[in-house]
Amino acid sequence: MEELVGLREGSSGDPVTLQELWGPCPRIRRGIRGGLEWLKKKLFRVGEDWYFLMTLGVLMALISYAMSFTVGRVAQAHKWLYQEIGEGHLLRYLSWAVYPIALVSFSSGFSQSITPSSGGSGIPELKTILSGVVLEDYLDIKNFGAKVVGLTCTLAGGSTIFLGKVGPFVHLSVMMAAYLGRLRVVTTGEPENKSKQNEMLVAGAAVGVATVFAAPFSGVLFSIEVMSSHFSVWDYWRGFFAATCGAFMFRLLAVFNSEQETITSLFKTSFRVDIPFDLPEIFFFVALGAICGVLSCAYLFCQRTFLGFVKTNPVTSKLLATSKPLYSALAALILASLTYPPGVGRFMASRFWMLILATTIPIPAGYFMPIFIFGAATGRLIGEALSLAFPEGIVAGGVTNPIVPGGYALAGAAAFSGAVTHTISTALLAFEMTGQIVHALPVLMAVLAANAIAQSFQPSFYDGTIIVKKLPYLPWIRCRKISSHRVVVEHFMNRGITTLAKDTPLEEVVKVVTSTDLAEYPLVESTESQVLLGTMRRAALVQALQAEPLSWAPGHQRCLQDVLATGCPVEPVTLLLSPETSLHQAHNLFELLNLQFLFVTSRGRAVGTVSWVELKKAISNVTNPPAPK
Amino acid sequence: MEELVGLREGSSGDPVTLQELWGPCPRIRRGIRGGLEWLKKKLFRVGEDWYFLMTLGVLMALISYAMSFTVGRVAQAHKWLYQEIGEGHLLRYLSWAVYPIALVSFSSGFSQSITPSSGGSGIPELKTILSGVVLEDYLDIKNFGAKVVGLTCTLAGGSTIFLGKVGPFVHLSVMMAAYLGRLRVVTTGEPENKSKQNEMLVAGAAVGVATVFAAPFSGVLFSIEVMSSHFSVWDYWRGFFAATCGAFMFRLLAVFNSEQETITSLFKTSFRVDIPFDLPEIFFFVALGAICGVLSCAYLFCQRTFLGFVKTNPVTSKLLATSKPLYSALAALILASLTYPPGVGRFMASRFWMLILATTIPIPAGYFMPIFIFGAATGRLIGEALSLAFPEGIVAGGVTNPIVPGGYALAGAAAFSGAVTHTISTALLAFEMTGQIVHALPVLMAVLAANAIAQSFQPSFYDGTIIVKKLPYLPWIRCRKISSHRVVVEHFMNRGITTLAKDTPLEEVVKVVTSTDLAEYPLVESTESQVLLGTMRRAALVQALQAEPLSWAPGHQRCLQDVLATGCPVEPVTLLLSPETSLHQAHNLFELLNLQFLFVTSRGRAVGTVSWVELKKAISNVTNPPAPK
Repeated sequence: MEELVGLREGSSGDPVTLQELWGPCPRIRRGIRGGLEWLKKKLFRVGEDWYFLMTLGVLMALISYAMSFTVGRVAQAHKWLYQEIGEGHLLRYLSWAVYPIALVSFSSGFSQSITPSSGGSGIPELKTILSGVVLEDYLDIKNFGAKVVGLTCTLAGGSTIFLGKVGPFVHLSVMMAAYLGRLRVVTTGEPENKSKQNEMLVAGAAVGVATVFAAPFSGVLFSIEVMSSHFSVWDYWRGFFAATCGAFMFRLLAVFNSEQETITSLFKTSFRVDIPFDLPEIFFFVALGAICGVLSCAYLFCQRTFLGFVKTNPVTSKLLATSKPLYSALAALILASLTYPPGVGRFMASRFWMLILATTIPIPAGYFMPIFIFGAATGRLIGEALSLAFPEGIVAGGVTNPIVPGGYALAGAAAFSGAVTHTISTALLAFEMTGQIVHALPVLMAVLAANAIAQSFQPSFYDGTIIVKKLPYLPWIRCRKISSHRVVVEHFMNRGITTLAKDTPLEEVVKVVTSTDLAEYPLVESTESQVLLGTMRRAALVQALQAEPLSWAPGHQRCLQDVLATGCPVEPVTLLLSPETSLHQAHNLFELLNLQFLFVTSRGRAVGTVSWVELKKAISNVTNPPAPK
Repeated sequence: MEELVGLREGSSGDPVTLQELWGPCPRIRRGIRGGLEWLKKKLFRVGEDWYFLMTLGVLMALISYAMSFTVGRVAQAHKWLYQEIGEGHLLRYLSWAVYPIALVSFSSGFSQSITPSSGGSGIPELKTILSGVVLEDYLDIKNFGAKVVGLTCTLAGGSTIFLGKVGPFVHLSVMMAAYLGRLRVVTTGEPENKSKQNEMLVAGAAVGVATVFAAPFSGVLFSIEVMSSHFSVWDYWRGFFAATCGAFMFRLLAVFNSEQETITSLFKTSFRVDIPFDLPEIFFFVALGAICGVLSCAYLFCQRTFLGFVKTNPVTSKLLATSKPLYSALAALILASLTYPPGVGRFMASRFWMLILATTIPIPAGYFMPIFIFGAATGRLIGEALSLAFPEGIVAGGVTNPIVPGGYALAGAAAFSGAVTHTISTALLAFEMTGQIVHALPVLMAVLAANAIAQSFQPSFYDGTIIVKKLPYLPWIRCRKISSHRVVVEHFMNRGITTLAKDTPLEEVVKVVTSTDLAEYPLVESTESQVLLGTMRRAALVQALQAEPLSWAPGHQRCLQDVLATGCPVEPVTLLLSPETSLHQAHNLFELLNLQFLFVTSRGRAVGTVSWVELKKAISNVTNPPAPK
């Protein structure tokens, strides 16, 4: 006991604790503790971002699961009501129609009242944001609740409305990523960093797809293909990590809720593994791909035309502008009447055109899943037709095997959705959802065939929406002619550049600032030399001008130099084009670095600017050269 | 008959042919013909590149298949010889060992005699080439034959040498792509275009992986992950197209050769679809991933150390320098003796360290497949151990299912090969090779765990080889600290810039050109102003200087201006940095645009240059700040 006290007293001056001296092998234990400390530090160093991505994945999986759960319960209630309500046709019709109408008009009214930007899928807007455009409030967390509630109502509308949740979930994930990023900035005190923010948004998009389909591979690839034209392997890894966390959590919840016994694919299939298809069937797969490609062109064209019609038609446009819930209710009424099972509903072979009507409703909803299912139906139809035409299977070698229509459904789904969205990863999505990848080659070939047709004739679903909504975008240079490589910046840059020189008199500066509304003004050395020094922000300039006492000493004309001397900040220009930069090179730079705007200098002189406007004009000139007059 | 003649005569002045007027519905037929013409034009317009990619895929598939076929036959012959040779131990040993020794030394001698750069996998060098460095002769078509013959011999060495064909096949495909690209330039007369060339090389790399494993998805993703840090969706599509053509052709050949009844996966599995694994097994999968990560670190460390040892040890380095076939034969002798089945071979649990020896042999060979198989063995071992430890399966809910060790083999293969190469797509490769994707989540989690460990402690197999071989490379900025964003070009640029001014006297120009060996010289307006005008190529400058008569008029000192007046070409500088550009931004630019070198200008004055050397130094300073003195 005395020893014990002695040790305790000794330990106050020494970091060696009692337990350490008593336990065996103090050195080894200290070593282990050191190792653990080091591991902790190591993990934390690598960690930070990874923890953040994990949080994102887990949160979105929870929301996705909760939403699926609620939607399932509401749909069950609707089914029960419809079955229990008795034989009267009016009552049955009412119970069939009122439910989705109420849900859709609530969804529309609620989400639009909180924020007008919560409608639609959100992917076209995200694409614009990720290319560097700032869309105000689009990633604000206040949209989150509106979109979650609205989307839940839309999905609860069930097979009548028949819309999906991929797009809005991508939007939700990205909102969440932006919010978490802002939280981190606040908690750690780090200054905001644009490239870091972008990394998070890209990972968020991957999480969105992954938590809906529990498909991490295609989640990452689909979001990359849809969102950007370039991406870094670094982003891709982060996307994989976050998407895996999300998908795991999403499936884990299903297990915990006793829906599933273990983590498996969403829609399991069991195709023959030995001989999933006969060799000549490859031809039918490619033909199916081509058919899907043609259908997708027709769909995209009709969809864009109808969307344009709804926006320009005086009746519908007025309805959409003044009372969105009413428009939504009317559209839902039409859809519900048409799908009413004892009515026309039982004769409806396809919902093709109905999807087009549904996409015009201003509610938070995704359009990917219905397209995927329509493609699967087309594929199944062709598969069944083939299996009727060749009941014995196709004779290739000695043994023949019956045709499996399911394989065609898989290929049709992947090809049609791939063609509509201009992506290839839908093939991988089909495999991840079914758990089998034996059809890898035929499905991939169908998707490639469908994409070849769709990409040559129509912009993708998302690009089309960007065009109809008049969002800013930077087109691809589709023309790969060698002559296009000879177009240089000098040919298309904007030469009407407003510069402020150090020796510009103050009254002229005031005139320039009041007569134009640029956000930034280039500052040059002198009116004569025009050597670019940097840029001045309008806000800072206006502030400095207002602070400046306008008393003029006679004989000394006050100029911009005096304002600069008071400490008005000049921002450096970090990247410069020269007039000889080629169009391809400039386009590459804008796309790769998400730029909006660059200065062109020649021998240091500011000679022009290039922005998306100039690039677009130059690209359209290269692709469709103006007719000689 | 008269009519006929009359028509014939009429037809000479008119494009309407006889058949057209005779046949029914001439208008419709003409319409159809017009449509076909249009389709042809359309296809041809889009085509060009696609035809080229298809040719590449089909050619490489043919070569891959022919090689596999030959190797199979040779290995069969060896097996037959070994079994038929009788009971004598000496004869058996000789028949076992002489075969691989002869093959390996021939492979080494033949390939090295044609070109010294045909050894190894080729992936590290390709990575360097794709980042913009020109490695002379590396993509020359004359390497092609050497590599094909050498690789066939290596593979025929069979399980003794135990090396794969992925790496060399990637190299072969890229060589073929470069050759086809050059052919196209010659046939179409288009000028060479560097970005177009790069597109082809990237597609070639994807074809290489796809034709070995018949796995288009992972082929594309693996080649992207290994080769580059950034990529464009455009390249990714081209890669998919070429890889699909290649994989399809490769499997088609197997069907035609009656090895397979139809196109299926290479190594089919039939895991349970309903419950492939119990939920708690996820933990074991992640643990397996962590074990594979640690093992991969050990492997990478040993491999690099041993490679360094072989290069520095006086005996081996002399042997490698003077007689490579002898070294190869000795290494093969050691390997063959160790694997001799009646000897030590039957006790060999793992070939781990033997692979390290095999990688030092200077023959064309791939190192991916052995790594993949070693990982599978590790996984299988752990899987079997688990199934022994839990013979009834793991009790999670009510029903228990026995553990399937095959799933662990899959995860082990993907995790170990992923960790060694720092890639994630190996998971997808495992699925594509087996035709099932039910283990998507656990395998992905194992691969992520393994990568997390391997990437924090060791460079990847390919990066390690780049470091050991002293190839140029641009490191990543691993440091994501905010302070690193404050480092700007001004802090690390090379200020010792040699400029030639228009008013530089000719004798000084000659002095500069003879005393330095730059490929390009910056041309500035005047010695005083240093305003950058463009660059002059050394070759053109030397030529112009030689052509200039060196007769000096007294009183007029001849300067560079006079040489320029004779038409010596000045090339424009298309992109400029400013001293305020941040390190991250500059690094991004270099990586994205595959640059080697940029000028830094301030107010038009050339103030410095930034190249890989400066960037590397700056990055290492940011990551490990120099100790204060």
